[in-house]
Amino acid sequence: MTKKEATIFGIYPIQEALSSEVIIDKLYVQKGIDNPKIDAIVKTLEHKEASISFVPIEKLNKLTHGNHQGIVAVTSPIAFSSLEEIVEKVLLAKKQPLFLILDQISDVRNFGAILRTAECTGVDAVIIQKKGGAPITGDTVKTSAGAIFKIPICKVDHIKDALFYLQGSGISIVAATEKAKKNVFDLDLKKPLAFILGSEGKGVSTSVLNLVDEKAALPLLGEINSLNVSVACGAFLYEVVRQQQL
Amino acid sequence: MTKKEATIFGIYPIQEALSSEVIIDKLYVQKGIDNPKIDAIVKTLEHKEASISFVPIEKLNKLTHGNHQGIVAVTSPIAFSSLEEIVEKVLLAKKQPLFLILDQISDVRNFGAILRTAECTGVDAVIIQKKGGAPITGDTVKTSAGAIFKIPICKVDHIKDALFYLQGSGISIVAATEKAKKNVFDLDLKKPLAFILGSEGKGVSTSVLNLVDEKAALPLLGEINSLNVSVACGAFLYEVVRQQQL
Repeated sequence: MTKKEATIFGIYPIQEALSSEVIIDKLYVQKGIDNPKIDAIVKTLEHKEASISFVPIEKLNKLTHGNHQGIVAVTSPIAFSSLEEIVEKVLLAKKQPLFLILDQISDVRNFGAILRTAECTGVDAVIIQKKGGAPITGDTVKTSAGAIFKIPICKVDHIKDALFYLQGSGISIVAATEKAKKNVFDLDLKKPLAFILGSEGKGVSTSVLNLVDEKAALPLLGEINSLNVSVACGAFLYEVVRQQQL
Repeated sequence: MTKKEATIFGIYPIQEALSSEVIIDKLYVQKGIDNPKIDAIVKTLEHKEASISFVPIEKLNKLTHGNHQGIVAVTSPIAFSSLEEIVEKVLLAKKQPLFLILDQISDVRNFGAILRTAECTGVDAVIIQKKGGAPITGDTVKTSAGAIFKIPICKVDHIKDALFYLQGSGISIVAATEKAKKNVFDLDLKKPLAFILGSEGKGVSTSVLNLVDEKAALPLLGEINSLNVSVACGAFLYEVVRQQQL
C-alpha cells in the first residue's frame, strides 16, 4: 500500500479511474462547464469520499499541462475506511475506544505528524472532513513515517455528522481548545473517547465546540498563547495513554 | 528583536560585523586559504558562540554570488545567553529549574516547534551545541511563533560540557530515548531537571546517554517505533508540567 498520489485529467481517463480500484481524493471541475459526461462523473463521486470543487479554468491549467477538458482528479495514495464499520468493530473489541477528529488541519506536515502520533498512541481511527483539510501528499506520507498506511482514516461529509454518530455510540467528545476553563490533566479520560483538534489558525470551530461533551486546555506557562497543533495533539494523546495505563 | 538572519561575505564586511553588535552564527572559511586577516577573524570567533566550518570554495560560491574572498558569515537573528549566567539566575529564583538540551536537532521546523513548546511549558533555557544543529532561519523564527525571542538559548561547545555543568549545579539530566526501559510517567519529575532530546535520525548519541542520570521513553502502542521529535518533546515537557502542578 505504498502508492503515491497522482493527477489524472480529461474525461475518459477519469471515467477509467472510476471503474478501477483507484481512489479519487479531490476532483476539480471547470466552473460553468456544460457536459453530461462530466455531470455523470460528479454524480458518481458525490457518493464517495472525494471532495469536489468547481474552479476557474486557470486553476485547472495550473494543475496540469495536458488537455484537461475541464476536469482534473487527484488520486489518493490510501483507501479510506467507513466510520460506521470502524466504530462498530472497535466497540466490539475494546473497552476504551480512542478516536481522533481533525477539524480542518491544513498543513500537510502537521497532518502527517498527527497521524504518526495517533498510530503511536493507540488511536483506533482518525476522522477528517471531506472539504477543507490538508491533501494527502508525498509530504504527508513522509512526515507520517508510514502511519498513513497503518491507521484507518475515515472521511466524513461534515465533522458534526461524525460527532453525532460517535456520541450516539456512547463515545465522549473532548475538544482541545485554549478557550477551555478545564485543564486536560483534571479530566477523567478513562472512558470511550474522541479527541477533536482544530485548524492551525482558528482552532476548533465554534459551531463544533457547542456540540462537544467537554473542553480541555493544556496549561500555557509562557507568553505565547498556543502550541503547534501536532505538539498539542501529542500532549493530549499521551495524557490519555498515561491515564489508561494507571 | 525581530531581526532576520543575513549573509555577509568578504574580509572587510565581516571585520566590520565583528566590531558591531551583529552576532555571527556560522562562519564558512575556504579550506586551505592562507590569509592572516582571515586567521584573525577565525581566532576572534573561536571565543564566541559561532560555529566555524572549513569548506571547499564551491560551497562558498553557492552561499553567495559576490566576491567572498574565501570567507562567508551568516548572522544570527537572536542573541545567545551564557549557560553559567542563566543557571545561576534560575537556581536563585526557582525551586524546580527546567532546562531543555537539544543534541543535534537538524530540522529547522522541528527546532522552531520545540522552542515554541519550551516557551509554553516554562522551560528556563534551551541549550544547543555550536556544531551540528539546525541553523536559525526565517522558518525557525516562524515555526517558533516568536518563542525564539522570548526564551534564552545557550550555545555550548559540546553538549557534554553542559551536562557536567548542570549536574554539578544539582540538576538531574533525563534523556528521552526509545531505548529506555523506564516509562516517563513512572519517573519522579518534581525536581531540578534538564531534558535531553536527540536528533531526528539517531536520537541522543550513545556517548551522551552514558552520562545522563535517567533515561525515559514514551510508550509506543503501535507498529511505528518513534515519534516526531517535537511531538515527543511536547509529551515529555507536559508530563513535567503535570507532575509539577500536583
